[in-house]
Amino acid sequence: MSYAKQMLDTHPQTFELDAQLLVEAIDALQDCAQACTACADACLGEDGVADLVRCIRLDLDCADVCAATAKVMTRQTAYAPPISRALVEAARTACATCAAECEQHAGHHEHCRVCAGACRRAEQACSRLLVAMGA
Amino acid sequence: MSYAKQMLDTHPQTFELDAQLLVEAIDALQDCAQACTACADACLGEDGVADLVRCIRLDLDCADVCAATAKVMTRQTAYAPPISRALVEAARTACATCAAECEQHAGHHEHCRVCAGACRRAEQACSRLLVAMGA
Amino acid sequence: MSYAKQMLDTHPQTFELDAQLLVEAIDALQDCAQACTACADACLGEDGVADLVRCIRLDLDCADVCAATAKVMTRQTAYAPPISRALVEAARTACATCAAECEQHAGHHEHCRVCAGACRRAEQACSRLLVAMGA
Amino acid sequence: MSYAKQMLDTHPQTFELDAQLLVEAIDALQDCAQACTACADACLGEDGVADLVRCIRLDLDCADVCAATAKVMTRQTAYAPPISRALVEAARTACATCAAECEQHAGHHEHCRVCAGACRRAEQACSRLLVAMGA
Repeated sequence: MSYAKQMLDTHPQTFELDAQLLVEAIDALQDCAQACTACADACLGEDGVADLVRCIRLDLDCADVCAATAKVMTRQTAYAPPISRALVEAARTACATCAAECEQHAGHHEHCRVCAGACRRAEQACSRLLVAMGA
Repeated sequence: MSYAKQMLDTHPQTFELDAQLLVEAIDALQDCAQACTACADACLGEDGVADLVRCIRLDLDCADVCAATAKVMTRQTAYAPPISRALVEAARTACATCAAECEQHAGHHEHCRVCAGACRRAEQACSRLLVAMGA
Repeated sequence: MSYAKQMLDTHPQTFELDAQLLVEAIDALQDCAQACTACADACLGEDGVADLVRCIRLDLDCADVCAATAKVMTRQTAYAPPISRALVEAARTACATCAAECEQHAGHHEHCRVCAGACRRAEQACSRLLVAMGA
Repeated sequence: MSYAKQMLDTHPQTFELDAQLLVEAIDALQDCAQACTACADACLGEDGVADLVRCIRLDLDCADVCAATAKVMTRQTAYAPPISRALVEAARTACATCAAECEQHAGHHEHCRVCAGACRRAEQACSRLLVAMGA
């Protein structure tokens, strides 16, 4: 069981969002942040780094946005819907953009293939959360 | 001269956005992140912390969103407009929400008054950037 | 299989540290960052928030230090031992300090009990890594 | 006047550290984080990116460590000396290592020259803080 789930289960307050959707989104966002940080570094370690400049940049952006979104969505006390909605929208955009870039390198670089999968999973979790938020 | 400006002046690539607007936004977002981190801590140190729970939560959110946005907007290589637009929109929302909360405590707590000012300045810098981005 | 492991398995370069130890540390640090962010928020949502001020502060510190350490340890390209060693040492200290505080509230608050466990696991993973680093 | 200073001036609690030293360190750490984030991106935008791989990696590490250290040192409520000491030590190491790398490229790249200056200033502010902490 993930720590996101264990911690939500022990939170003193009731949530406005479905706990299962929330846990899936937080876990997927953190996995994506981890994969993107690692993919940026793996790209930097490739001989053909010059061909991976856009991929590195989008990995760094996606890692920053996903990490911030996971933190904001983890907070349940005094929940502020407009911030969450706008930020999950930004995370969905970052994940979709980074996934599309990584997919172009997936045939040559396994790290891009794995990272693209993490981005797509986070993109979908964000989409489901946005539906639940009525966005 | 801020480091955001010094570093943009020495960047090897041309920018799609006006450098002055960009510098103002990055500086304002970083100031806001700093003020919010400090305001959350100052609220936590107040005798009446129980009355400041929503303020602390929004300070933490706003700090996370502004710090991520400043990093993404600092990057000029392989610029990705949709991510920037969605994220600056999220930052504007976070700043406006946090400012409104801090303004309610500004009469009692100087740190909330200063923090509200930083949030409003960042909100306005984000608004100007969104206009320039055609959002 | 965690993304830290999947991404290390696909990295183009050889590592100076044992990959298994590294994966355990990165996973434990990220779990700890997640648990601490959630515990700070859960404490903030408790009626007795005034008694949990030190716990919230240490949770926030521990989350920041663990997240930064996980990112630095994820990078394998052009590995810089002195930075890693000093930072893992700081993470071990933050985890031990936060665990000791959360353990004092574990009888009353389940979120503190779960968080203390995550902190102790990360503390131990850091200790093992420091031994492997010859620190 | 920096926001670090304005916010410390309005904090409800007394500090264990000299406020002036603290403000200088927080400001220098944030400037360094900003310069390193921008320098990593500028290096990524250079034609000779393959020669700047170690610089990019150290810029990313230094930005992560400095940003986390600035946040921890900004918190004055329930101050925890051992965490601060270990983390400022890690930041000093990161700044010194990154400065030494950027200095090697300073003749060819203005962004590396500016970034090296920011790193040295943060390194020195950390050193002064460590003396004041009795470390």
